[in-house]
Amino acid sequence: MSLYPGYIRKPHYYETDQMAIIHHSNYIRWFEEARVELLAYLDLPYHTIESVGLIVPVLGVSAQYKQMIRYEDEVLIKVLVDKYTGTRLDFRYEISKTSDGQLTTIGTSQHCFLAKETNRLVQLKRQFPEIHQRFADYAALSETTAKEA
Amino acid sequence: MSLYPGYIRKPHYYETDQMAIIHHSNYIRWFEEARVELLAYLDLPYHTIESVGLIVPVLGVSAQYKQMIRYEDEVLIKVLVDKYTGTRLDFRYEISKTSDGQLTTIGTSQHCFLAKETNRLVQLKRQFPEIHQRFADYAALSETTAKEA
Amino acid sequence: MSLYPGYIRKPHYYETDQMAIIHHSNYIRWFEEARVELLAYLDLPYHTIESVGLIVPVLGVSAQYKQMIRYEDEVLIKVLVDKYTGTRLDFRYEISKTSDGQLTTIGTSQHCFLAKETNRLVQLKRQFPEIHQRFADYAALSETTAKEA
Amino acid sequence: MSLYPGYIRKPHYYETDQMAIIHHSNYIRWFEEARVELLAYLDLPYHTIESVGLIVPVLGVSAQYKQMIRYEDEVLIKVLVDKYTGTRLDFRYEISKTSDGQLTTIGTSQHCFLAKETNRLVQLKRQFPEIHQRFADYAALSETTAKEA
Repeated sequence: MSLYPGYIRKPHYYETDQMAIIHHSNYIRWFEEARVELLAYLDLPYHTIESVGLIVPVLGVSAQYKQMIRYEDEVLIKVLVDKYTGTRLDFRYEISKTSDGQLTTIGTSQHCFLAKETNRLVQLKRQFPEIHQRFADYAALSETTAKEA
Repeated sequence: MSLYPGYIRKPHYYETDQMAIIHHSNYIRWFEEARVELLAYLDLPYHTIESVGLIVPVLGVSAQYKQMIRYEDEVLIKVLVDKYTGTRLDFRYEISKTSDGQLTTIGTSQHCFLAKETNRLVQLKRQFPEIHQRFADYAALSETTAKEA
Repeated sequence: MSLYPGYIRKPHYYETDQMAIIHHSNYIRWFEEARVELLAYLDLPYHTIESVGLIVPVLGVSAQYKQMIRYEDEVLIKVLVDKYTGTRLDFRYEISKTSDGQLTTIGTSQHCFLAKETNRLVQLKRQFPEIHQRFADYAALSETTAKEA
Repeated sequence: MSLYPGYIRKPHYYETDQMAIIHHSNYIRWFEEARVELLAYLDLPYHTIESVGLIVPVLGVSAQYKQMIRYEDEVLIKVLVDKYTGTRLDFRYEISKTSDGQLTTIGTSQHCFLAKETNRLVQLKRQFPEIHQRFADYAALSETTAKEA
């Protein structure tokens, strides 16, 4: 297993605003797109997760906008697993322009695992050990990478 | 019963684009807001319709943009029932600026009634006669008004 | 020059609604994405068009929803130039599922060319002959293809 | 001057997702709507701010989702000025359901003031003393209220 190289995204025209930049709310959506791509990369596509009866609601998000992104800027969105506890899963995001590598945005999101039927917290380790192992492995890999950086 | 006077809406900043106008896709959303308001006016709020097991998917939409709408323009969105057949429901929309009454946009949408469980077409007249009567009455009123205009 | 093969798109989670389908307003945005991709394919990227002082507002759109699209459905969006007059440019869209080729949605959009500074209609043939030629050629190709089909 | 009582908002259907809740990205947009309403309440409507040559970009946002919001839930969005330094302006948001007053979401956003022409930081106190005074007064009022609470 190697680290997810990140998600390439071109802004859409409807994502611009009258400041002629990408409206800040869209980055929260890009984070979602990026973590969905990461899940697919981990062979855990989101519709599979939903189809086994799990939902993964968002408990919190944050974004810091360091540089504006314009319509013509292609970006790379990196996603790391920041923390994984078996019931909680936290991501970290870094957006940079592919043209010059400049970091434009950092972000975080916090999630938990609920059973779709009961809305109750799920212990992945016990109930979905394979999914658990995948997240645990990737969290370890993310941590190692972060330390080396 | 009198004709629904229309829905007042101020554009949101995130609805602007880098042409410094409201992005055209948002009007389709405003049409939805306006017909939801009309349904509430007819004492048929959409969550009630869904709670009796009906869904009302969109079969088609159209919009014609006659004048641009800018961030600072407050608008009035009028909705008429254009056609109601017992299984089909078509709306017509007219957006105008409240400042000068200028017509900016016209639109249409076409809908049907499906049972949520089976995804099958529902005959409102037989299965939900009260909802049927409300739409039939409002369609007649819409038609009368259109003829008088 | 050959016909643009179409734009592959996976729905985003934030594009679903509580009917568990892609909300109908998003297709209008997908049409924009697809025509932007077509412009890039024609070597006329939209930011280049804007950078020479042109804007290409939307005069009208329509969509007909034949089949629902769900979160897990990857789609192919084909775009044809339906009409090109030198001042007007009309597109036609066809969305189908990549899994089974089933046609889900058809749409249209109508556009004109304005000078950004004056908001006045631009005659591409006279003022931007190269851009004009590209559109005229592609419109001819689209027409030929449509006739053969 | 008294504290802004907050902004009443009904969710739109297109803001729901297939978990049958309001998609988390929309709250960032609701925060914007609420602070725009606060600015209007302070007699500083955003289009006026832009028309004097100022832009107020977002430097950061955060949201914590304590309770899900559903389509049928009307909410009240309160906005406080959390900090105002003359060049920086930070807001705090609290969303609660109007039905039972239950707190569902808290959030923050951080902003600065830039000159539209130069993209340079603006000292409001020197360049726009009236706007400065309005924010300074409201920040003081927000602080008093927070302490009393």
